[in-house]
Amino acid sequence: MIINNSLDEVKKRENALSIIKNIVETKGRNFLFDLTGLSGGFIVNPSELSLLETYVGPAIFEDALQEVGIEHMGGEKVLPLNRTSSGILATILSLVNENSNVVHYLAKLPAHPSIPRSCKLVGANYFETDIFEEFKIPDNTSLVIITGSTMDHQVIDENEFKQVIEMAHEKNIPVLVDDASGARLRTVVYNQKKACDLGADIAITSTDKLMPGPRGGLMAGRVELIDQIKVKVNQFGLEAQPPVVLAMLNGIKNFNEDNLIKSFKRKDELFDLLSQKFNNFEKTPTGVMITAEKLACEISTSHNLSDNDLAFILSFILLKDYGIITIPAVGMPGASATIRFDLSTTDAFNLNLNDLNKKIESSFDKLQSIVSNEEKCKEIVFTF
Amino acid sequence: MIINNSLDEVKKRENALSIIKNIVETKGRNFLFDLTGLSGGFIVNPSELSLLETYVGPAIFEDALQEVGIEHMGGEKVLPLNRTSSGILATILSLVNENSNVVHYLAKLPAHPSIPRSCKLVGANYFETDIFEEFKIPDNTSLVIITGSTMDHQVIDENEFKQVIEMAHEKNIPVLVDDASGARLRTVVYNQKKACDLGADIAITSTDKLMPGPRGGLMAGRVELIDQIKVKVNQFGLEAQPPVVLAMLNGIKNFNEDNLIKSFKRKDELFDLLSQKFNNFEKTPTGVMITAEKLACEISTSHNLSDNDLAFILSFILLKDYGIITIPAVGMPGASATIRFDLSTTDAFNLNLNDLNKKIESSFDKLQSIVSNEEKCKEIVFTF
Repeated sequence: MIINNSLDEVKKRENALSIIKNIVETKGRNFLFDLTGLSGGFIVNPSELSLLETYVGPAIFEDALQEVGIEHMGGEKVLPLNRTSSGILATILSLVNENSNVVHYLAKLPAHPSIPRSCKLVGANYFETDIFEEFKIPDNTSLVIITGSTMDHQVIDENEFKQVIEMAHEKNIPVLVDDASGARLRTVVYNQKKACDLGADIAITSTDKLMPGPRGGLMAGRVELIDQIKVKVNQFGLEAQPPVVLAMLNGIKNFNEDNLIKSFKRKDELFDLLSQKFNNFEKTPTGVMITAEKLACEISTSHNLSDNDLAFILSFILLKDYGIITIPAVGMPGASATIRFDLSTTDAFNLNLNDLNKKIESSFDKLQSIVSNEEKCKEIVFTF
Repeated sequence: MIINNSLDEVKKRENALSIIKNIVETKGRNFLFDLTGLSGGFIVNPSELSLLETYVGPAIFEDALQEVGIEHMGGEKVLPLNRTSSGILATILSLVNENSNVVHYLAKLPAHPSIPRSCKLVGANYFETDIFEEFKIPDNTSLVIITGSTMDHQVIDENEFKQVIEMAHEKNIPVLVDDASGARLRTVVYNQKKACDLGADIAITSTDKLMPGPRGGLMAGRVELIDQIKVKVNQFGLEAQPPVVLAMLNGIKNFNEDNLIKSFKRKDELFDLLSQKFNNFEKTPTGVMITAEKLACEISTSHNLSDNDLAFILSFILLKDYGIITIPAVGMPGASATIRFDLSTTDAFNLNLNDLNKKIESSFDKLQSIVSNEEKCKEIVFTF
């Protein structure tokens, strides 16, 4: 095993960032291809820069974000957060009591780790399921959570979405929707309604996922709940800072539905190319992916590595040899080890898909050739 | 009572931000005077802007921050955080177990509320004192905390600082120093050593306090502890985002010790002017202040308001009538209600102190004239 715990994950991320830095400095930004689908952006007008002071910035930009954010997310009020994970933490700190129950329905397990972790922190009992028929709301439940679209872009069925909300509201329990990428994927690609319009009390999206915004979370919902959550957010330092709020505002304004829809079609082309050699790639709404488990099926050489290790190694080969950035290399601890090639982001637009296919093939060949040498694999993941 | 709880504090802050926005938009930025000492800044070179993407930004700027941050703070490694409060939360989540003890020594009570709040969250027992002779480290202590300089700029004695660290290390207990403003105040104005150089295992400073950086926290310390804390930071979304990291880097590079020293002298002039009419102002290292309790002594009309209410009202009068920003108006929940006029920030440099004195006098006169009318006072704090 190469990656054994969260600390190892932090270290491999640090190494990936060093490699990226080296590529930018020695070859240039053009030699990097961020296909994470999380590359976001930081769109700022130079004249806006001078207003980015501590107390002046939020006055201007948070106010403007109310209007633009509500248009994007629905709800009565929005609240910009440092990350979607910190928004989930703040919601659970605000609404969930010790020993109460939290139940979570999502299209496919596993849940984003910030949800069970935050429940553990407040001492709540956490239940999750991806089987609709098994979803129940026990007595003493303080919060119902729905994931709109999973980390691997599995989208919830809209009827099940509505039914879970109804079940919760019959018992007067608030509903939090983790709509990290779903706020755009569900609505633009699958024509579903906004979470708040479906009756969610609180919804939160990641402003760097499938849109040109900064890493950050945007929460929307009922005003009295948002105000209650905002208290915890300010107390523990979980809010988005003014430069990030400004970039959220401009990111939403520059969100282009057509790009999402184009990548929705273009992923079929990449999938067909990859399927000439591989059997285990799957389509996502805006690209292709291979899970760590399925990746292991493509490796015929014997080895002692975990499935996740294989994904981490492949992702470092892609980065070091071709400048292709995927989530396993740069992700935060607990992020999915699925290798996803997302075609909805700026770097992907001008990419020749035949060329990309060849680079992926040759990275697999390299993985195959080193997989029995654990020292060599460690070197690829942890050294520069 | 006007301000009764954290929710009221959030609402008065929102109103203050609306008032600031209105002044910027109708009169211009020049009509605002941010004397909080927290106005920070966001210094960014336009060529740096294009690198501010999710995974490319941290690769470049976090690496550069290591060098510059260690020079400013000491220690082996630095970690940029969304706020000092979130760094304190992460440290306590990482190092403090349920039912263990946390002891805190500071020059003057009260402690910053994020410390007891974070201890409560993990179920630890929290003890604090500002009397050195009473400071003890009981059995089963997991963390010793020292505040380098309080919210009201009371600075710890360096000998006591060293002794507390020795006491903790004799028992192998790590020491966290909350050096929010102290990292500059203690070192530049009082010639004390950096917290890490005095033996602290972890120190954290606010990059917007007494320097031209963004709101954010910069942690420094021993590499194995920083790595351990970084895991929680990434898990719960407490890290500083790339635009903030870049502004921290540039803020530290542009930190000018002379400005701090100049304000250290200029505050005597303001203090003398104010003391012609008032008896209860006190000097801070870089300005003057009046606590809520002392402010109450200056009010002769009878009323039913709390001391803190008086400070909030005065701070809204200063803002609405003269564009003078002080912490009680814009502070986060739990921030000190002390009215401080800090002379170390950019807006203060060109301010005529005779003129400032007259504006403060006339704001006090207005407070005096409305203090018996609670409805009128509420209107000033909560309406636009």
